Amino acid sequence: MSTVRIAGVGLTPFGAHSDRTGRELFAAAALAALEDSSVDRTAVEQLNYGNFMGALAENQGHQAPLMAEAAGLQCPATRYEQACASSGVAIREAVRLIRSGETDVVVAGGMERMTTLDTSTVTAALAIAADELYEVRAGVTFPSAYALMARAYFEQFGGDREDLAHIAVKNHANAVENEYAQYQNEITLTEALESPPVATPLHLYDACPITDGASAVVLVSEEYADAHGLAAPVSIAGSGQGGDNLALQDRKKMAQTPATAAAAEEAYADAGITATDVEFAEVHDCFTIAEVLAIESLGLFETGEGISAAREGKTTADGEVPVNLSGGLKAKGHPVGATGGSQIVEVTRLLRGDHPNSDVLDDPTVGLTHNAGGTVASAVVHVLEATNE
Amino acid sequence: MSTVRIAGVGLTPFGAHSDRTGRELFAAAALAALEDSSVDRTAVEQLNYGNFMGALAENQGHQAPLMAEAAGLQCPATRYEQACASSGVAIREAVRLIRSGETDVVVAGGMERMTTLDTSTVTAALAIAADELYEVRAGVTFPSAYALMARAYFEQFGGDREDLAHIAVKNHANAVENEYAQYQNEITLTEALESPPVATPLHLYDACPITDGASAVVLVSEEYADAHGLAAPVSIAGSGQGGDNLALQDRKKMAQTPATAAAAEEAYADAGITATDVEFAEVHDCFTIAEVLAIESLGLFETGEGISAAREGKTTADGEVPVNLSGGLKAKGHPVGATGGSQIVEVTRLLRGDHPNSDVLDDPTVGLTHNAGGTVASAVVHVLEATNE
Repeated sequence: MSTVRIAGVGLTPFGAHSDRTGRELFAAAALAALEDSSVDRTAVEQLNYGNFMGALAENQGHQAPLMAEAAGLQCPATRYEQACASSGVAIREAVRLIRSGETDVVVAGGMERMTTLDTSTVTAALAIAADELYEVRAGVTFPSAYALMARAYFEQFGGDREDLAHIAVKNHANAVENEYAQYQNEITLTEALESPPVATPLHLYDACPITDGASAVVLVSEEYADAHGLAAPVSIAGSGQGGDNLALQDRKKMAQTPATAAAAEEAYADAGITATDVEFAEVHDCFTIAEVLAIESLGLFETGEGISAAREGKTTADGEVPVNLSGGLKAKGHPVGATGGSQIVEVTRLLRGDHPNSDVLDDPTVGLTHNAGGTVASAVVHVLEATNE
Repeated sequence: MSTVRIAGVGLTPFGAHSDRTGRELFAAAALAALEDSSVDRTAVEQLNYGNFMGALAENQGHQAPLMAEAAGLQCPATRYEQACASSGVAIREAVRLIRSGETDVVVAGGMERMTTLDTSTVTAALAIAADELYEVRAGVTFPSAYALMARAYFEQFGGDREDLAHIAVKNHANAVENEYAQYQNEITLTEALESPPVATPLHLYDACPITDGASAVVLVSEEYADAHGLAAPVSIAGSGQGGDNLALQDRKKMAQTPATAAAAEEAYADAGITATDVEFAEVHDCFTIAEVLAIESLGLFETGEGISAAREGKTTADGEVPVNLSGGLKAKGHPVGATGGSQIVEVTRLLRGDHPNSDVLDDPTVGLTHNAGGTVASAVVHVLEATNE
């Protein structure tokens, strides 16, 4: 089985790009990744591309061949759609393909364009990641779904809005130096707490923003990296995917995310590590409560103890397990189809030591990404390792 | 590398299912495939699911975990979207996954629900498989795009509307005994020629219908089939995928489909065969001209000679290479996300000898499927072989 190495990474700035088409955005990220990798685009054998709401936001399906064309790639291209985990699954299947030995060079990533839709339209477009028959028709949108999960969590394990606000404050602080982040500004605990209510107990600063952007990574087999003298100092050592019922009402538990736990279990076994080996993580904090659920299901914190982690400084930049050093979805932004790829980009840079926040980590060797779809009906976890050559 | 065997196949009838949800349709196909396979659903390790227009037709994205749930599968599930080749790519990636040795049992297939949309809405929904900026905004819909290809073909290679009408007559004749077909009725050449014009030179009977339906196959490694005593007498011996510019205007040639040629070349090499070994084929005849382009690019006929093949009886049930013995998209129907899987189902049954049209083939050993997206900006080809054990 080939080891999968990350030869290059690329991003567009996250934010509002109302003047750019989706194809432009993805091409920019893909070309940045290729340039970072020193791999010629003619060497690319496959494009795995993630996008969620292109049919609604750009009236454009069948985006994979279009994105290959825009990036100048002359290879088969396949689109993955898994709600907000779309590029997470695109990367996972690229990893498995390279491991199989069939393919040596795959570009994987994703793109989303969302800010050109008005707020009610984009809220409706996001809602199709939930169950149309049993949730959407009943009025569920994602802020309300995560609010239900937060209320279930508070009831079962305790905690309060102020605990959640500490997560928003932490993630904004982490984004300040990240030039790709949508919001490079700190916020205070008071600002977070006093922001307008959205769906009790969640307020505006508990939610990630609406974002345009793209991400891409160039994945190669170790044999290819060696044969071509590529640096590629980071490998994807573990990959896992989990699933759950789409509708919250069908789940046994609303305050835990077994899809994440299953994905993490598989990824840890795959990498030959345990949760205690993870030195830092990028997790899917589409809402502050989602970060709590993630760090618990990933095994980074015990069940019921994730809620106070940010408040107690355990997940801050100088904490025991820094979480979302990029700023997370909360402050970096969440162009949904691009997010899973973006997490891989951030962790790669942190492991390589060329991230603006690299100074907070001391020669890190193991980082984790966690990308979730819907109310965590899908989850993809990757373990990245510095090869230290 | 594991050989991939087809343990079971399942379909819903193709047609109008306005009383059934998409999840019901896919569950019916998946459960039929599992029953046909004798594989217990708890053994399934992954679901690869294809769907094209769910966001528009059912207001439902993130369908993969929903479909796993509906079919009672407790495994990760991933959605593939590649326009009308969505389940083609879903099956292709399942094949590669099993070959890698990582996974032994994958359910793959697709579903589309289209008939609940009115004609103009479904035409617009289908159009997003073309290039929004350079085709759709200029008024291109799929009948007009294939009409352009037909005109370019006639100009370059000759042929006329009557040649195309013979394809419609042939495919309707093939569908008469197929209980899954939307139209189990013969049509006459005169009826085809006198049907209303849609986009010159294409008339109504040059086009496939709007259809609801689902398809599923249970794919297993040879080792799994042997260990569990499964019959699984058909293997997927070759797989290939090709891509092209999304917009017709960007192509060098409009009367040929290099994406199909690339996919076929890869699939033939993979299976260790040539085009002359193919005994029969299910090809993507969304329009009659598409069948002509397919059989030429697949190498079953020389360039310029596909147009007269049906008229001369070369592709009819008793011809040298029967094409679309199922009735094809033309008469069996085209629920777009289900079509690639449906072709695998049909060829499997023809190779097993339990298809209503099995009597026209004499102990066949090699059949082919060809699934295309858009104006063949994507193509997936599979070579199926009877193992003759």
